Amino acid sequence: MVRKLEPLQLVESVTGRAGFTSSIGVHVLSADIGRVTLELLRRSDLLQFNGFFHGGAIAGLADHAAGAAVTTELPPELIAVTVNIHVNYLAPADGDRIIARATAEQVGNTLCVATVDVTTATTAENERRCALATATLRAVDFAATQE
Amino acid sequence: MVRKLEPLQLVESVTGRAGFTSSIGVHVLSADIGRVTLELLRRSDLLQFNGFFHGGAIAGLADHAAGAAVTTELPPELIAVTVNIHVNYLAPADGDRIIARATAEQVGNTLCVATVDVTTATTAENERRCALATATLRAVDFAATQE
Amino acid sequence: MVRKLEPLQLVESVTGRAGFTSSIGVHVLSADIGRVTLELLRRSDLLQFNGFFHGGAIAGLADHAAGAAVTTELPPELIAVTVNIHVNYLAPADGDRIIARATAEQVGNTLCVATVDVTTATTAENERRCALATATLRAVDFAATQE
Amino acid sequence: MVRKLEPLQLVESVTGRAGFTSSIGVHVLSADIGRVTLELLRRSDLLQFNGFFHGGAIAGLADHAAGAAVTTELPPELIAVTVNIHVNYLAPADGDRIIARATAEQVGNTLCVATVDVTTATTAENERRCALATATLRAVDFAATQE
Repeated sequence: MVRKLEPLQLVESVTGRAGFTSSIGVHVLSADIGRVTLELLRRSDLLQFNGFFHGGAIAGLADHAAGAAVTTELPPELIAVTVNIHVNYLAPADGDRIIARATAEQVGNTLCVATVDVTTATTAENERRCALATATLRAVDFAATQE
Repeated sequence: MVRKLEPLQLVESVTGRAGFTSSIGVHVLSADIGRVTLELLRRSDLLQFNGFFHGGAIAGLADHAAGAAVTTELPPELIAVTVNIHVNYLAPADGDRIIARATAEQVGNTLCVATVDVTTATTAENERRCALATATLRAVDFAATQE
Repeated sequence: MVRKLEPLQLVESVTGRAGFTSSIGVHVLSADIGRVTLELLRRSDLLQFNGFFHGGAIAGLADHAAGAAVTTELPPELIAVTVNIHVNYLAPADGDRIIARATAEQVGNTLCVATVDVTTATTAENERRCALATATLRAVDFAATQE
Repeated sequence: MVRKLEPLQLVESVTGRAGFTSSIGVHVLSADIGRVTLELLRRSDLLQFNGFFHGGAIAGLADHAAGAAVTTELPPELIAVTVNIHVNYLAPADGDRIIARATAEQVGNTLCVATVDVTTATTAENERRCALATATLRAVDFAATQE
């Protein structure tokens, strides 16, 4: 039997596992049913030639936030995997952190959709949007992914 | 005056700079006018919970390949930056490497489009497609990005 | 000199011109700076094989709404044209109308982004979301498009 | 029992049904397993303010071509419906026709992906690309869509 975790425990557990998201340093700021906020601090290995966060780091953070937001709405044995993602880069991610706020827009039996608002900030006052993403995901059996 | 580099020199120069693409270990396999092939070898910090390459690593590689393919067609003082990217994940990226082949589909004065075919392979014989991406980019003055 | 129209006049003027949007029967429900709401009533020539609104009609309505929302924020001599659009179909558009609410998310010198929420309804009470879209647009000189 | 149609019969049957695709005048130029070519002739009700084909007509044609290409690879009782579509407009669709060539890139049990190349032409010699699209679809039971 799979025990149902609280959203914050669940998202921290998935995010903290060895792999891409823990390596790039994703922090979970908050997690509720259908809504997750993640943060990535500026680090030299996450930047592109112009000194701003690289699009791959932004897309990776948005992808993970979308998956986490949808997974909080799924039964405990299921996890959301991304089918496709569309990322619009709106402004240079030139702050000392980027923050992704994901919302599960639809959670269906086979397909789910989440939107993600990504901002960049140096101080609490100058946070501003740098990207918007929409992800389509599907729910898969978590145990099956571990075989 | 900016000296025009050969496509391979140009793409290696952009890819090898300190930052995201060199940190994740992107290799340039080939580069010609409008066509670039990049490779990423399996490393534990690039994987997701199921042991496959994370979508963020795939999106990051595709984004960089798209930008490189378009930049080889631009005048030497310009570099392509991504406006938006759409990535379709078709199959688990479960090989020991992923390979992104980008093609510049259109290079205009203000906007450019590239498509990227991403495969995964363990041996030379079992390479198969794991993602498709389309990126829209714009050409910006490289010097302006360094200020 | 180009006279600046009020948002509602402007959107009705662009929507009512001979062509695709007037032929499929787009109605302007409201228009304000950066926000436009359009409606399309069920008609047999807008449906697909299952009796629901066809994806092309939904995409066309969303595209026009995005363009209209952005254009209300542009100087009077400019009009927004779509660079690319991403449409997620969330549920069958099985009502007797579809309604597109577009918001200009960013209006830049060269590129603009709008998001569109599309709902379907039969009565005022049962309106529900059937699609989400994100469009990237650019501002072009309107006179140049009429040559 | 459902009789398996030849690809051309199948695509003509779906395209010719009363509704959006027959109303806008979609012609089937060719259909094979996984590949479909459709055409739309210039008509005043398909244009936008500048006299070119409207994005909604292009997106509708691309959507239908993607669905048709995937459906030719499905068992006879299944039909593909679009989950999401991404359309890049590359050049004005200023010819007297637009032609959509769709290819089924992946046909899975739950999800399918097709790419579509859209050209515009006035004579056989001046055909050129005006849009690129990628659609994600899923296979549904055709009978269930007719209830």
